[in-house]
Amino acid sequence: MAIGSAPDAACCGPLTRETITPADAEAFARRLKALADPVRLRLVSIVAASEGHEACVCDLTEPVGLSQPTVSHHLKILTEAGFLSRSKRGTWAYYRLVPGALEAVAAPLVSV
Amino acid sequence: MAIGSAPDAACCGPLTRETITPADAEAFARRLKALADPVRLRLVSIVAASEGHEACVCDLTEPVGLSQPTVSHHLKILTEAGFLSRSKRGTWAYYRLVPGALEAVAAPLVSV
Repeated sequence: MAIGSAPDAACCGPLTRETITPADAEAFARRLKALADPVRLRLVSIVAASEGHEACVCDLTEPVGLSQPTVSHHLKILTEAGFLSRSKRGTWAYYRLVPGALEAVAAPLVSV
Repeated sequence: MAIGSAPDAACCGPLTRETITPADAEAFARRLKALADPVRLRLVSIVAASEGHEACVCDLTEPVGLSQPTVSHHLKILTEAGFLSRSKRGTWAYYRLVPGALEAVAAPLVSV
């Protein structure tokens, strides 16, 4: 069963066009913080660049050189923030990129 | 004199196409962290939405409801990260959005 949450709709219009509201700024900052870590960026990138945009946790520890508990901690933050979804098959958990989640973070940063 | 630094070139290709290198992930995470704060998002947004993409620090404290030292601290982080440039004219410091800086952060998040 997929446990990851769907991404929020893009939080807001472009930052350069209208002033972001305090509530939108809180929500957007939370999502940016989840991504603003070198290990988490690498994990997202490895998952995203994998076949089917999906990877087994068993294949994620070696490339980042960290223990499985540490990697699982980072994956949990990414899943809770809506960037990855998690499914369990047999022994292992598999992580998949949530379609549109990265683009939803990029959108307010781009002028239209 | 403008003191802000120009933005780095986009750190890397899209995260979904190729795996980000550890060095690029460090640099990208640093820039995301500078932006991943609700007050700093609001300051960037107010500056960006101002006429000429520029605002006086004297006009930034009231909208965010914080003291000038606190606002100046956040503006310094944004300036050092290359999102804003700073110039002093008379008594006041003026902050201007660095063209392309937000887009450079968005680019690796968008699939091509």
